[in-house]
Amino acid sequence: MALLIQNGEIVTSDQRYTADILIEGETITQIGEELDVPDGAEVIDASGQYVFPGFIDPHVHVHLPFMGTFAKDTHATASQAALIGGTTTFIEMLAPAASETLRSGWQTWTDKAHGHSACDYTFHIGVTRWDGETEQTLRELVSGGMTSFKVFLAYKDAFGIEDAALFNTLKLARELGVVVTAHCENAELVSQLQAQLLAEGKTGPEWHEPSRPEQVEADGTAHFATFLEMTGAEGYVVHLSNARALKAALDARQRGVKLHIESVIPHFLLDRTFAERPGVEGAKYVMSPPLRDRANQAALWKALKNGDIDTVATDHCPFDVEQKRMGDGNFTLIPNGIPAIEDRVNLLYTYGVCRGGLSLNRFVDAASTRAAQIFGLYPKKGAVQVGSDADLVIYDPGYRGTVSAATSHVNNDYSGFEGFEIEGRPRVVTVRGQIAVRDGEFVGDPGRGQLLRRPPRVADGANEGARRERERG
Amino acid sequence: MALLIQNGEIVTSDQRYTADILIEGETITQIGEELDVPDGAEVIDASGQYVFPGFIDPHVHVHLPFMGTFAKDTHATASQAALIGGTTTFIEMLAPAASETLRSGWQTWTDKAHGHSACDYTFHIGVTRWDGETEQTLRELVSGGMTSFKVFLAYKDAFGIEDAALFNTLKLARELGVVVTAHCENAELVSQLQAQLLAEGKTGPEWHEPSRPEQVEADGTAHFATFLEMTGAEGYVVHLSNARALKAALDARQRGVKLHIESVIPHFLLDRTFAERPGVEGAKYVMSPPLRDRANQAALWKALKNGDIDTVATDHCPFDVEQKRMGDGNFTLIPNGIPAIEDRVNLLYTYGVCRGGLSLNRFVDAASTRAAQIFGLYPKKGAVQVGSDADLVIYDPGYRGTVSAATSHVNNDYSGFEGFEIEGRPRVVTVRGQIAVRDGEFVGDPGRGQLLRRPPRVADGANEGARRERERG
Amino acid sequence: MALLIQNGEIVTSDQRYTADILIEGETITQIGEELDVPDGAEVIDASGQYVFPGFIDPHVHVHLPFMGTFAKDTHATASQAALIGGTTTFIEMLAPAASETLRSGWQTWTDKAHGHSACDYTFHIGVTRWDGETEQTLRELVSGGMTSFKVFLAYKDAFGIEDAALFNTLKLARELGVVVTAHCENAELVSQLQAQLLAEGKTGPEWHEPSRPEQVEADGTAHFATFLEMTGAEGYVVHLSNARALKAALDARQRGVKLHIESVIPHFLLDRTFAERPGVEGAKYVMSPPLRDRANQAALWKALKNGDIDTVATDHCPFDVEQKRMGDGNFTLIPNGIPAIEDRVNLLYTYGVCRGGLSLNRFVDAASTRAAQIFGLYPKKGAVQVGSDADLVIYDPGYRGTVSAATSHVNNDYSGFEGFEIEGRPRVVTVRGQIAVRDGEFVGDPGRGQLLRRPPRVADGANEGARRERERG
Amino acid sequence: MALLIQNGEIVTSDQRYTADILIEGETITQIGEELDVPDGAEVIDASGQYVFPGFIDPHVHVHLPFMGTFAKDTHATASQAALIGGTTTFIEMLAPAASETLRSGWQTWTDKAHGHSACDYTFHIGVTRWDGETEQTLRELVSGGMTSFKVFLAYKDAFGIEDAALFNTLKLARELGVVVTAHCENAELVSQLQAQLLAEGKTGPEWHEPSRPEQVEADGTAHFATFLEMTGAEGYVVHLSNARALKAALDARQRGVKLHIESVIPHFLLDRTFAERPGVEGAKYVMSPPLRDRANQAALWKALKNGDIDTVATDHCPFDVEQKRMGDGNFTLIPNGIPAIEDRVNLLYTYGVCRGGLSLNRFVDAASTRAAQIFGLYPKKGAVQVGSDADLVIYDPGYRGTVSAATSHVNNDYSGFEGFEIEGRPRVVTVRGQIAVRDGEFVGDPGRGQLLRRPPRVADGANEGARRERERG
Repeated sequence: MALLIQNGEIVTSDQRYTADILIEGETITQIGEELDVPDGAEVIDASGQYVFPGFIDPHVHVHLPFMGTFAKDTHATASQAALIGGTTTFIEMLAPAASETLRSGWQTWTDKAHGHSACDYTFHIGVTRWDGETEQTLRELVSGGMTSFKVFLAYKDAFGIEDAALFNTLKLARELGVVVTAHCENAELVSQLQAQLLAEGKTGPEWHEPSRPEQVEADGTAHFATFLEMTGAEGYVVHLSNARALKAALDARQRGVKLHIESVIPHFLLDRTFAERPGVEGAKYVMSPPLRDRANQAALWKALKNGDIDTVATDHCPFDVEQKRMGDGNFTLIPNGIPAIEDRVNLLYTYGVCRGGLSLNRFVDAASTRAAQIFGLYPKKGAVQVGSDADLVIYDPGYRGTVSAATSHVNNDYSGFEGFEIEGRPRVVTVRGQIAVRDGEFVGDPGRGQLLRRPPRVADGANEGARRERERG
Repeated sequence: MALLIQNGEIVTSDQRYTADILIEGETITQIGEELDVPDGAEVIDASGQYVFPGFIDPHVHVHLPFMGTFAKDTHATASQAALIGGTTTFIEMLAPAASETLRSGWQTWTDKAHGHSACDYTFHIGVTRWDGETEQTLRELVSGGMTSFKVFLAYKDAFGIEDAALFNTLKLARELGVVVTAHCENAELVSQLQAQLLAEGKTGPEWHEPSRPEQVEADGTAHFATFLEMTGAEGYVVHLSNARALKAALDARQRGVKLHIESVIPHFLLDRTFAERPGVEGAKYVMSPPLRDRANQAALWKALKNGDIDTVATDHCPFDVEQKRMGDGNFTLIPNGIPAIEDRVNLLYTYGVCRGGLSLNRFVDAASTRAAQIFGLYPKKGAVQVGSDADLVIYDPGYRGTVSAATSHVNNDYSGFEGFEIEGRPRVVTVRGQIAVRDGEFVGDPGRGQLLRRPPRVADGANEGARRERERG
Repeated sequence: MALLIQNGEIVTSDQRYTADILIEGETITQIGEELDVPDGAEVIDASGQYVFPGFIDPHVHVHLPFMGTFAKDTHATASQAALIGGTTTFIEMLAPAASETLRSGWQTWTDKAHGHSACDYTFHIGVTRWDGETEQTLRELVSGGMTSFKVFLAYKDAFGIEDAALFNTLKLARELGVVVTAHCENAELVSQLQAQLLAEGKTGPEWHEPSRPEQVEADGTAHFATFLEMTGAEGYVVHLSNARALKAALDARQRGVKLHIESVIPHFLLDRTFAERPGVEGAKYVMSPPLRDRANQAALWKALKNGDIDTVATDHCPFDVEQKRMGDGNFTLIPNGIPAIEDRVNLLYTYGVCRGGLSLNRFVDAASTRAAQIFGLYPKKGAVQVGSDADLVIYDPGYRGTVSAATSHVNNDYSGFEGFEIEGRPRVVTVRGQIAVRDGEFVGDPGRGQLLRRPPRVADGANEGARRERERG
Repeated sequence: MALLIQNGEIVTSDQRYTADILIEGETITQIGEELDVPDGAEVIDASGQYVFPGFIDPHVHVHLPFMGTFAKDTHATASQAALIGGTTTFIEMLAPAASETLRSGWQTWTDKAHGHSACDYTFHIGVTRWDGETEQTLRELVSGGMTSFKVFLAYKDAFGIEDAALFNTLKLARELGVVVTAHCENAELVSQLQAQLLAEGKTGPEWHEPSRPEQVEADGTAHFATFLEMTGAEGYVVHLSNARALKAALDARQRGVKLHIESVIPHFLLDRTFAERPGVEGAKYVMSPPLRDRANQAALWKALKNGDIDTVATDHCPFDVEQKRMGDGNFTLIPNGIPAIEDRVNLLYTYGVCRGGLSLNRFVDAASTRAAQIFGLYPKKGAVQVGSDADLVIYDPGYRGTVSAATSHVNNDYSGFEGFEIEGRPRVVTVRGQIAVRDGEFVGDPGRGQLLRRPPRVADGANEGARRERERG
């Protein structure tokens, strides 16, 4: 059945205009003024509303064994919450423990997801150790369309890898045209500072930030950039949280390193004082990199506006209050994470676009288009154009509401953004042409989501001339 | 009559795919696979060729009284040369002398252009003095669609303006949503250094560069950025030539200044040794900012590849050898300029894409799309999508040739790129649906070009929420 | 009569040891352990106290016509207040109005000072215009030992000079071996922003800072550095107040510009909230560059500790409350200045050394030795060594007191540091061997001060080899 | 016996004047004009010559097992060569292999030196592993006056330490007031790049530089700085070789990290083309960090002139040509090092002071005084003042000669500076009052050298007020 969206203000990463959109099957087939209504088509009047490409969250944890417990979401809860918030595609971190083979990790994660996600999804393949078997598995996964990796410079002895493994991973990535995402905190420094703080009797959640100071992240970022430079690989820093790390990343870019930057919604809106609340109230706000001094928020917003920060993601990772209590008396045992998959788009729209001077185009770019471009989904995802997947968000800027765990669809018993006002919300969300959400309710097919396979990046440094010669060879 | 371009590899700033393009009237009306051939349509087989959006040269001089003489081109010669080289739109600097009213300058320039340009064009309005009448004229021109200004920090006593005029110009630009382009060399330093060199008997063209060293441009760039920051205006540095000035511009951007960067093709491919050739041979290569030490070229290419440099223009400005001789014995009297309007695209493709690792997408972005976006022409220009003007370049990557004044269509008796090999050339170029060039020959309508009127920039800093409230009253 | 100081802890810019000091006539003649007591010598037991070289304030206004009024001090009041606070030499800004000849300014200032200063003094020669007569006078003054200039990029139409005069001044300075000190705020921006704020009805002292934002000073600093680089002259930024300007100065230094940095004591201890007090309470804290956001203080202290900031001065300039009222209703008419000549050393010792982690050596270096070295007074001044002038400060670190206008010796009816605790004070201060101060009271010769004549700087860039050849000629 | 040096031009780090110097016993006892000649004193007429404080080489290898062989010098040859070249104190790297206990290393090194050095010496204590015994030994050595450590981020599996050991070493250094010197190249990157190059058949000495590119050193430098920042320790980068690493160090300093910078004489005068000579000719020039692109030399000289680079050392490490041949066919097996202990001062004087615009004061500062200050030897060493050790260099600026292995006193069969002209040489050198060198010949006592014990650094960050309270208890 066809779907016709009339008179919406279409906003993409670089345009803004009013037109009708016709969807037939799973894709957009026409965009124009006053399109004819096909027989039997459902017609949606989007007057006074925005029509955005479906948003993409490129940094999500759903299935996650972490510090002896598991993040709370299932693919069902996470994907439906995502859709209600306007996110139609997410990229999950597939993070096998160092003790597990990558192949078995792949099996576990895909089994969990398969058939249970309401929206489309794909994976960053976590490289948590390096050996011949891992390399072989990586090559197979890449040829199967999993063209992004994830490495952790942090989490020594858990997911973290040493310099040798990092170098080899990046060399392989360069060879295969894979983008490598990285959690950039120096593991050793964190571990030493944690030990020092605990030894001094500093055990509460307020000590989580001092155990991983800004410079530790800046150093990790610079280090990752050096390895990218030495191997020629393309990188992506996840959840960059402060001005120093930002400078390290931008300096690297200026000298030609291929490096993308992601920041996550908590770092734009929350600061370290939240984590300094006593006891479990503070623990709710423990994530890594930690919430920072407020001054960093201005730097992040500025870099987001001018496009230096490419994407805004969530690092969604929900743990219940009871789980957060595991770290009572020892902040290093608090499961890390602040859930945000449902609220990211509305918060960014409200505090960025409505109140913060973020342009609508850059909003769409950061929350959808650039993630699609960087991770090989564009223009199937991230665009509103003929031929693109009909993942669309009809967005009502007149809506007024408040974030609350009580009304959230994430499987979590608290919200890090409790009480935050929002000034807009998706009215209708489609997944490849099918309506999945209406006015805050999931009304779609719980198993519609597909695993997205993606092409490798064509090497940028290669000369086009040489390539053509080769192709014609 | 319709035009159907079949099987070309369409390359835009962010996509690359093979499809057919149907043009009806002046615009693109369909893009798809295996489109039907309308009755009477001309069909062009673009197999094995690229289809680019028409290229845009945002920095061109055609009518230019300079140092007591006139640049050699007419709008006829310049526009046809542009088209042969794949440029379908140019933006001319309207640079009235300080002694002339802006209104009379407008009249002169538009009279010269009207009816004589084969391609579309528009103007950056030169602000060379500041008074009530100038302000009034600027307001009128902006409301008539001339939404970019040009200021010169250089050329004291000719076009240059002082800080007070600069501040007022930027305040007005901010108010009206105008982008201000700027030639950023400190006029006083240039003037003092020129005097000093001449006093030391240093009169040849090889002293042109030392009279305007890199730091003079870096200082001007930083100064312009400060004024942008203080007024909130949006700026655009023209013909940035060296690594220091680049750093000044990028530093400003990082702190939130809205600043775009243009470099011109001579600075990517030629260095100061060209201008150090004896006598008039050196004078041929005198432009400002001057050709620099070769080390800067690497910095410019790097910044171009990663998008820090937004656009590649020409600063096209042809003077014949006889005119260049005006500076025999005194380099400060050499008319400035190196013609490039015909060769820019082919040179950038050859030395960037084929030999230098510049990606095809970034090539299109820098030579077309970003100029359109910055100067209010997008997506009418700079895009290949349904509804866009059918300014298209079918580009033959198999062509091999050499740049030479002998075969050039610019009205100039020498070429700054004489003997440079090129590895590609436009096979067909269209201007709003009409074929203007076939295989290096102009075959179009010499008067088809239109003066493009452009909307003002919607203020970026404004909060969307407030705007919507206002709009709804 | 000889003076023997026994058992003090001598602290210089690079040493710290306990010894006796013998003074005969005006100079130090012996330093050693357990020196013999010459017949008739006065002996001072300095056990448990520091012995510092006399402190130097390189940035002081005494006679100053400003905004239609005069700063309140005479050379008698200023010099005695200086001595009580441990400052034994000051450098006054000789700042003729643009309308006055430099020669007549010189006459006025030296007449005012001659015979009325209790401590030694010299002048930075203000260059407030450029013409043949000025140049001639400058050459004469330099050959008479006045080897530092002062220029104002700020104060358009009063003291400020344009780029051409700046260039010529620096060229002359380079030729003569003169250090040029500069007030680095862009005059035009200040003037425009002032007009804009007043037009918006923003007239109180709280608008003084927004009329000369940090970037205006950073831009002025960078601009001055460029001119130094182009001329090869040696420069000195006065009263640098914020992190951005600091970065501009340090960047210049890194690329080889000879540039020294001074900050003044108010910027280390006071912030913009003082000037935001209502009415004349705020006006008391108006100076230029203005008091800044508190965050800048950390940057200044850090740069002071690591030696990036060379000197700590005062910009001493006292106006009474009644004079400050001239700016009621128009902040641009408030006479600029915060008096500090008496309190600088005690405040820097208390808040730097005692409470802020500033090393004792760096304290002496910044408040005495570097000023002597930069301005040609070393090692006559700024050192404790045999042959140096016996300007010494025996300092009691056990003293506890409070700054107050009530007990101040400056001719001023308020103090910008009212109520600030101090943790140390000079017990004895000598001027060339004669005791001038005992425990907070002036007990010396009111006319002892001499005008110090200084050698020009030997050009640094010159090759020593060439120089020796020349000398031996 | 007393020694009287008459009429020399005394040049220290901050002064330059002509006077007589009287030496009695081991120290300077008087400085003044026309001093009386004590009975029996030897009188040296130093007219037309400089008198410098004895030079200090803070980075020397004498006993060094490296890559299966031993550096060629003994303490006798090295110390006498040093003295002939004007160096009166050196600091040797005590670099036990990772397999050896630190205590046994200490025994070995001090046994080798004891009684065999003609000049004074001390050690940087190499920390090549971390365990309880090592920590205990370090504490004992520091309390015995060995107050500087050395760590290697490079040389994986030989001397290099991991992040955990680095952190612990710095924490201990902070506690004990020790300066930590560091070789800053990322070991893993070097190891990976070496393997990669060898695998590609790139085995000659010209591949040594590409195996440790500039960014590898910059990354190591930044990493070391981060660890200093996290622990509060004071650091010293040895043999910094390029502009990128310099920027990393200066950036760290600007944010308050206590970091000193050393560069070595080969990096100022030699570039990578030397190491690109074929076969063993290239191998002679293999050291780490490697000789770099010539462009870096300008950056090093600039930073040396303005004091950003603190010290100029040698990294003296002589291997004979036969030893260099160990790396025939595999550049990773070439023993690293270029000998320079005898030539450093003359080369720096000639190419810096005579030909390069380095000031005489900065020359003395960089080659003597700062090393003394940083490593706790000042003002016993590094100064010309009453009470200082009489280590003096009477330097003849009229001497003209040429560096050659044939005339060298280092135990080495080639010179890296063969054929370099020199324009000055020590005429007389004293070691604690005794003449050791006359006109290029060693005439002193071969065993006069003493092991210098040094005080720990008083913590800079500590507040003086608190310290005094504590002291007075």
